[in-house]
Amino acid sequence: MAGPLSPDFGRPLVDLPPLSLDRTAPRPLAVQLADALRAATADGTLRAGDRLPSTRALATTLGVSRTVTSAAYDQLLAEGWAQGRRGSGTYVVGAPAGPRAVPRAAAALAPRPERTFVDLTAGTPCVAALDRAAWRRAWRAAADPAPDIGPDFVGLDAFRGVVVEHLLRHRGLPADPADVLATGGSTAAIGELARTLPAGARVAVEEPGYQRAVDALRDAGLDVTSVPVDAAGLVVDALPSGLAAVYCTPAHQYPTGSRLSAARRVALVERARAEGFLVLEDDYDGELRYDVAPLPLLAALGPDVVVHFGTASKLLTPTLGAGWLVAPPAVREAVLAARQRGGGRPARAGQRVFAAFGAHGDLARHLRRLRRELAGRRAAVVAAVRGAGRVVEGDAAGAHVVVPLPDAATERAVVASAAARDVRLDGLARHYAGAPAAAGIVLGYAGPTGDELERALAVVAEVLTRP
Amino acid sequence: MAGPLSPDFGRPLVDLPPLSLDRTAPRPLAVQLADALRAATADGTLRAGDRLPSTRALATTLGVSRTVTSAAYDQLLAEGWAQGRRGSGTYVVGAPAGPRAVPRAAAALAPRPERTFVDLTAGTPCVAALDRAAWRRAWRAAADPAPDIGPDFVGLDAFRGVVVEHLLRHRGLPADPADVLATGGSTAAIGELARTLPAGARVAVEEPGYQRAVDALRDAGLDVTSVPVDAAGLVVDALPSGLAAVYCTPAHQYPTGSRLSAARRVALVERARAEGFLVLEDDYDGELRYDVAPLPLLAALGPDVVVHFGTASKLLTPTLGAGWLVAPPAVREAVLAARQRGGGRPARAGQRVFAAFGAHGDLARHLRRLRRELAGRRAAVVAAVRGAGRVVEGDAAGAHVVVPLPDAATERAVVASAAARDVRLDGLARHYAGAPAAAGIVLGYAGPTGDELERALAVVAEVLTRP
Repeated sequence: MAGPLSPDFGRPLVDLPPLSLDRTAPRPLAVQLADALRAATADGTLRAGDRLPSTRALATTLGVSRTVTSAAYDQLLAEGWAQGRRGSGTYVVGAPAGPRAVPRAAAALAPRPERTFVDLTAGTPCVAALDRAAWRRAWRAAADPAPDIGPDFVGLDAFRGVVVEHLLRHRGLPADPADVLATGGSTAAIGELARTLPAGARVAVEEPGYQRAVDALRDAGLDVTSVPVDAAGLVVDALPSGLAAVYCTPAHQYPTGSRLSAARRVALVERARAEGFLVLEDDYDGELRYDVAPLPLLAALGPDVVVHFGTASKLLTPTLGAGWLVAPPAVREAVLAARQRGGGRPARAGQRVFAAFGAHGDLARHLRRLRRELAGRRAAVVAAVRGAGRVVEGDAAGAHVVVPLPDAATERAVVASAAARDVRLDGLARHYAGAPAAAGIVLGYAGPTGDELERALAVVAEVLTRP
Repeated sequence: MAGPLSPDFGRPLVDLPPLSLDRTAPRPLAVQLADALRAATADGTLRAGDRLPSTRALATTLGVSRTVTSAAYDQLLAEGWAQGRRGSGTYVVGAPAGPRAVPRAAAALAPRPERTFVDLTAGTPCVAALDRAAWRRAWRAAADPAPDIGPDFVGLDAFRGVVVEHLLRHRGLPADPADVLATGGSTAAIGELARTLPAGARVAVEEPGYQRAVDALRDAGLDVTSVPVDAAGLVVDALPSGLAAVYCTPAHQYPTGSRLSAARRVALVERARAEGFLVLEDDYDGELRYDVAPLPLLAALGPDVVVHFGTASKLLTPTLGAGWLVAPPAVREAVLAARQRGGGRPARAGQRVFAAFGAHGDLARHLRRLRRELAGRRAAVVAAVRGAGRVVEGDAAGAHVVVPLPDAATERAVVASAAARDVRLDGLARHYAGAPAAAGIVLGYAGPTGDELERALAVVAEVLTRP
């Protein structure tokens, strides 16, 4: 289509590694391209679930004809390396199969099963810990209130009531429903908040950090600057001056797993007050502390300067698309004004289900189950990692650990070896906005079933022992 | 809060009319302010459901102390004219009561009921036509699929399948699930699309038109230009050159109720192709034609240049927060890329319910009921309006009509008289981006129950006869 379209139009949906095709080589370009894409998986640059650019976009990028890219994709689809999902493009399914044992007779006769990965990347909820009877009860109850007629910009009263109860009981934050706005989840809410800041305003983020939030801030036209983290969380002293906001994950830093110390919490809030910036507290994993009592939330220390973000996505499931923010009045007004001026408004269906789930104690029961389950899983992870002669970093909390590795090459080798054995691991490199300052594996243990986790940890122990 | 906040921070959530307070008058400023706000309701500038600015913001705007604005709000709250909803500020509830009959003994003894308005503004769904048993079935079924683990940017397969079936059966649009993206509703989707266009790009909108969409386009940094509509819809010949996109409501123009003629549909698509702009087809009320066969959708005529927007909000209820867009591949890719880079993603809970509602014929049954119900309601509206010696404009379709009035003063008088009798009407003036070129009432008949509508139409007939 001709026309004045955005520069983003048709851009590849994953940043492919540089693919070098040799036009003088005897091998067809399509074969070279398929090989290069397979190799990108082997070294962890491409991972299962990644979305490939369209054949057209890739052809443009590489300066080859679309016949070449289509033929390469067809080959990879036929091999089962990639999968075409109707309506959503072509996805990486698997790394190339490594050498395998001779198939047993039964397996050889059965239709070859689709290759499935056990996903040990961080950021997934523990659906296995969710009581399905309680889940069904909540959906049934969610049908009770009459269908809504008008728009809603703040969120359902029942939802905000349950959020307030949750914040008080599980996060020690006294809030009034009036302080709470429903959101579509943390990242969406951070994007909304970011768009209320003046274009070009300077915002500090953690390095390494949650890159999706960094993208949301950048896409809102903000000037994003990275600040290091250490074992006590964000290095508050390293914050530059002239900031409009600081985005951080104080409860369980993503991805390092450290926790912002009490002294730094106080210092951060004091600086925010003195310098007039907002603190965006992403309460990632906040509910999932199972060793020690939590530290006070930033929002509890500085309700006048802190915007607190929470979500049901990690606690329960992203199905609900329901999150919340707690913010000072002027910030809430600004977000509301943007919503009323044609912006998105939080969807109510998931709010209804969450409110019903919280209304009769199911949410509190779920959290207790979830903490028990994750504490048990973490112990298994720590045992496997230590058995392989490695250490685990990060507080005994949340749903992931970091396993430091000596260098980037080892990180890539471990990711690739695990992928060859159907376990998806996540390298630390991906969580840096700039050049990675450390190497390691970010190992999430919430997503798989208990059995899958057990099998995957055997693989992890081996690949960590002999990357 | 000090700090580099957006100029939008704390702006009033409705644009209040100019309120002139006289500091030399003997009446206290708070009393004057309360009077001025009541008067703004009487003339229709403020309407039931409007959100008032915070006492702080209003004090700043008017240059008075917050004591003044708080006292005025307290008075209006005590009168029941405004209502404070926890967490969402202060709302206009009613116009001042007009002269009333002496209360009957029973009513005098009973606690005074909260004043309620019958809302005859356009744009609300007909929840009265929704089969609650089918609604409950859908929510129960929505609990069946396992809770989701990962993110989803395109929308659930089951949802897109039902959308495709709906588009084919009820809108004559053959689409593949691959062409469809789930959205959070039409306005949210228009905002998403707008943000993929280059900042400053020129976009044409209908005048009068749907101001929430206009706001969404403007807020995305686009240069919005108005183009007139007539009895055959958008005047395509009046489109300027150099456009990036044209936003329109061809099925049932909002608010005039006209329909884009077949010749103009073809002309619009041809110009889009020749000049390289996108057509944003908001299929407002598209399903609700009950007189003649629908004209082909713009998306059917020009799938290469048209982005089609639909929503469950008007068809069923905004509770679901579920809509869809059908777009050429490059446009879908651009929206997906923005979603993946930290943008919002469509919430799945409402998609599940919609998919379940559509899976076993409940959606088709609902549409048949809805058309019957609305056709009956429209007949009652037309009879009431004609009985008052007025005419009705707009096709026999959708869920609203336009009643032309001679001038803006009559429009305001009709709105105010109706408000004094607990009926909320909507003047045409509000639907213009610029100076209104016509006066009238935009009368929606979907929202109330049948009984409420009947009572309200008696009021409408009277206020139209003697404004």
